[in-house]
Amino acid sequence: MDADGLPADELFCYLTGRRNEDIPYTHILSSMCTIPHPVAVKAHNQFMDTNLGDPGLFPGTASLEDHLIRWCADLFQAPGAGGCTTSGGTESNIQVLRFTKSVNGIKKPNIIVPASAHFSFEKACGMMDIEMRIAPLDDQYRMDHEAAAGLIDRNTCCIVAVAGTTEYGMTDPVPALGKIAGQEGIHLHVDAAFGGFVLPFIDDAPAFDFSIPEVGSISVDPHKMGMSTIPSGVLMVRDDHCFNNLLVETPYLTTKQAYSLTGTRPGASVAGAYAVMAHLGKKGMKAMVTGCMENTRRLIEGMEAFGISRRVTPDVNVATFEHVEVPKPWVVSYTRNQDLRIVCMPHVTRDCIESFLVDFGESYVPHTD
Amino acid sequence: MDADGLPADELFCYLTGRRNEDIPYTHILSSMCTIPHPVAVKAHNQFMDTNLGDPGLFPGTASLEDHLIRWCADLFQAPGAGGCTTSGGTESNIQVLRFTKSVNGIKKPNIIVPASAHFSFEKACGMMDIEMRIAPLDDQYRMDHEAAAGLIDRNTCCIVAVAGTTEYGMTDPVPALGKIAGQEGIHLHVDAAFGGFVLPFIDDAPAFDFSIPEVGSISVDPHKMGMSTIPSGVLMVRDDHCFNNLLVETPYLTTKQAYSLTGTRPGASVAGAYAVMAHLGKKGMKAMVTGCMENTRRLIEGMEAFGISRRVTPDVNVATFEHVEVPKPWVVSYTRNQDLRIVCMPHVTRDCIESFLVDFGESYVPHTD
Repeated sequence: MDADGLPADELFCYLTGRRNEDIPYTHILSSMCTIPHPVAVKAHNQFMDTNLGDPGLFPGTASLEDHLIRWCADLFQAPGAGGCTTSGGTESNIQVLRFTKSVNGIKKPNIIVPASAHFSFEKACGMMDIEMRIAPLDDQYRMDHEAAAGLIDRNTCCIVAVAGTTEYGMTDPVPALGKIAGQEGIHLHVDAAFGGFVLPFIDDAPAFDFSIPEVGSISVDPHKMGMSTIPSGVLMVRDDHCFNNLLVETPYLTTKQAYSLTGTRPGASVAGAYAVMAHLGKKGMKAMVTGCMENTRRLIEGMEAFGISRRVTPDVNVATFEHVEVPKPWVVSYTRNQDLRIVCMPHVTRDCIESFLVDFGESYVPHTD
Repeated sequence: MDADGLPADELFCYLTGRRNEDIPYTHILSSMCTIPHPVAVKAHNQFMDTNLGDPGLFPGTASLEDHLIRWCADLFQAPGAGGCTTSGGTESNIQVLRFTKSVNGIKKPNIIVPASAHFSFEKACGMMDIEMRIAPLDDQYRMDHEAAAGLIDRNTCCIVAVAGTTEYGMTDPVPALGKIAGQEGIHLHVDAAFGGFVLPFIDDAPAFDFSIPEVGSISVDPHKMGMSTIPSGVLMVRDDHCFNNLLVETPYLTTKQAYSLTGTRPGASVAGAYAVMAHLGKKGMKAMVTGCMENTRRLIEGMEAFGISRRVTPDVNVATFEHVEVPKPWVVSYTRNQDLRIVCMPHVTRDCIESFLVDFGESYVPHTD
């Protein structure tokens, strides 16, 4: 920091320069974030200075959070479910481990996760001294539920299933895992950070939500397929008594206890998430998701026409292929197995897919061996 | 969520109604948040869709984070210090406990915190199975460093000092705690979430930063006295090797490892924090802090003129008094000891203080016993 400040015009000239160094979303095919919907940005601005860490000061903002939770309860088929907003999937998953670990009074807790689980579980388990037991995947990149059952012991406090995996866009066999969790009396958490705003809008999608009686909690991120502003996560719980043993006293705030992990937290992105869901409604969300799934199918067909085979037919809008390089300036990503991975977010339009396929076709040289 | 969406004009009419139910900052005297500076809001919008969880996509935004860290290193008098941005003080404190706990290889770790420590330490310790040992305060509401020394044993992995306590605005005796930490080889963390952007701009302020050789880390929140947008925290460490044992593999992102606690995280509020510091410079920050401190003194004098005595003369812009009720619509808070507490944030202007004193004087009935 210099002694003298920079005039606003010079500051924003500089900031524009830095912003232009970022890769534009027009060529980002690797991210589960997207350009937020204009109503999310407008609502974010309207609530920019609100702090839901002290909700008694912001009862209007807090009422939007309540609506959002009720909508997610309805969407996930348990109108009586409880929930809270978070900064995203990592915090949601940490919160689940906090309450499952403390409920059971287990001395050396462990959890079962699929090999496809997001790396946030490694962080959370390391931090909380929880052993992470990794269940292998089947040939469709879904958690092998029989192998998962074999990993359970009396210290297992949680089974994690993923709905819309980060790498392959698959959904674990939640009904089968539910049976196992129910028999053993173990909490079943569904990490639907990505799929939670996709699967409810697809006909004949795999079951993953509270309609499966043993599902105890579901996380979903509005800043992914909810087209909202960062940071925005939602953690839903079938029984909100879960949260009771997370409560700490919060002196000098307008509420006397809180169970959230963070203290000060933005109302702005909660308003953003509310705005998108209110504005699009279920029909608008379905139309958005339908478009992303159609683009995903078109991409897979287009790549297969070049002889690049899909790894799997995904449950959500994540397409994966055998390893192949793509031309600049397109930004793709590769899975731990080095498979090509492309996420067909809302900013990845049909035109964008067609441009990518043209560029890919011009640069691709098939193996001749 | 309804089947049909709400048109944008109806949506924003509804949102305006909810926003108007929030208490306006004009009457909030209880919060450590404030109205963000206009340059923070403008920069936040310019970087709204950036995700620093995947910094390779956003190198321009990431460069602002680097600048912010360098400025904080300079401000806290250790130009070679490392650091990272976080969602706020709670996450910063959790990160410190993550690396201090894992560095020492202690089986049953404990930390020493002052009785004035923020409630986030209770959450973090509960989650991470760390025993929290509470050192009492002296008559000036500062940590009793001799009592703290008496709580140390071979399982102590961290001593926490606070610079600008949430309740009384005091700064713990960091130099004395530094000597103790140095003798025992224990990490000393300074929670300067509030005071970190106040004390450097006050002449003759108590020492709290890296100029004390034993201070290992300092947290500060731009969304408090940095006048930036929520969520915005910074964690500074004297030696950034601290972060090494927090690293996890991050497949399918543009970077291969990350040590942050959260995954997706906003670049927008980092740009906001950068913008305020760039635009105000050290002189502008000092002018802002000087105004807040003058208003704090005026408030204390005004209340004492009514016979309401201060609890302590604060190091930062937090004023506390014997318990007394205040008239509506002013929103104040009370400490755990039921003392009246008023935070003189930048939105609490001199006019605001004078209006409050007039309203208070009209409603106050002195005890006659």
